[in-house]
Amino acid sequence: MTQLTPWERLQSEPLISNPYLTLRRDTCRLPDGQIIDDYYVLVERDVACVVALTPARELLLVEQYKHGLGRICLEIPGGVFASDAADPLAEARREFNEETGYDAPTFFHVGTLPVSPARTTIRMHLYAALDAVPCGTQQLDSTEKIIVHRLPVDTVLDLIRSGAIDVSTTVSGIFLGLDYLRRAGLLS
Amino acid sequence: MTQLTPWERLQSEPLISNPYLTLRRDTCRLPDGQIIDDYYVLVERDVACVVALTPARELLLVEQYKHGLGRICLEIPGGVFASDAADPLAEARREFNEETGYDAPTFFHVGTLPVSPARTTIRMHLYAALDAVPCGTQQLDSTEKIIVHRLPVDTVLDLIRSGAIDVSTTVSGIFLGLDYLRRAGLLS
Repeated sequence: MTQLTPWERLQSEPLISNPYLTLRRDTCRLPDGQIIDDYYVLVERDVACVVALTPARELLLVEQYKHGLGRICLEIPGGVFASDAADPLAEARREFNEETGYDAPTFFHVGTLPVSPARTTIRMHLYAALDAVPCGTQQLDSTEKIIVHRLPVDTVLDLIRSGAIDVSTTVSGIFLGLDYLRRAGLLS
Repeated sequence: MTQLTPWERLQSEPLISNPYLTLRRDTCRLPDGQIIDDYYVLVERDVACVVALTPARELLLVEQYKHGLGRICLEIPGGVFASDAADPLAEARREFNEETGYDAPTFFHVGTLPVSPARTTIRMHLYAALDAVPCGTQQLDSTEKIIVHRLPVDTVLDLIRSGAIDVSTTVSGIFLGLDYLRRAGLLS
């Protein structure tokens, strides 16, 4: 479908580098020969997220303060990979277990979605699960405080339409996850 | 719905600050008194995006190299606000006109979606439009090269399901934009 050519990265300078992120300043050559010497790229580990339904077909959501935005958000459970080489499925299940205290028999891979491709490397590895049931208690980091919500699918869609659920990764995740389960014949 | 308390930002140090972005290092006090002294936040201007259909009910998409991800992406048209105080509707229309060479009689505000709230301030201001028609030629920056595609809605949904259209903001934008138009009785 494409007649476009990627840019060539001539040089890369890490301006900030710590366990959480790297901010790179790239010098690039464009296909027409132009040089851009100050393109900033934020490198972070990928995230894994789960659209999970209980046997009563309620969707599991987590409510949590997000400091980038500076606000409390209602989102699908998920989080950052524990290491660069982590297995996406294992990360999805681990994050889901830890944040919600629920587990599910199967996690279906729905898609891998770049989050903000102009500026970052981050992708969301999206999974869907049915028959999620409590498996214990939340296992949170000391800086995390998360409230788990179980809401009927129609209520969740109304909350998306009203803007009460608004984070783009959660909106894409819910629509795509439900579409996946319906097309697989797993959800009516 | 919430019993959660936002973090208190005690101090903010701009590590990188240029016309494109600011990277802040925040010192925060958590509700339990814990101090985090190295929370990094990427501050960028918001973006405006448009889910637009032609009179033949084809969806307008743009294909473009994205250097954060390092890959060519197929996305809904849109872009970064020209200034911090810009009017979202005017930005949506301007970006749409410039990237596609199309215009539409009305741009409906569908929602405002945070893109990556743990780390960034950026929100996508999402608009939907019908009856988009050519209004001239693309007006691109010297570093931009964009191919415009017009595809039937069903084809676009198949491309999302196959992963050929994968960017989270585009996936959430298309599902939410089509849902908005259908519920408003503007699309069957």
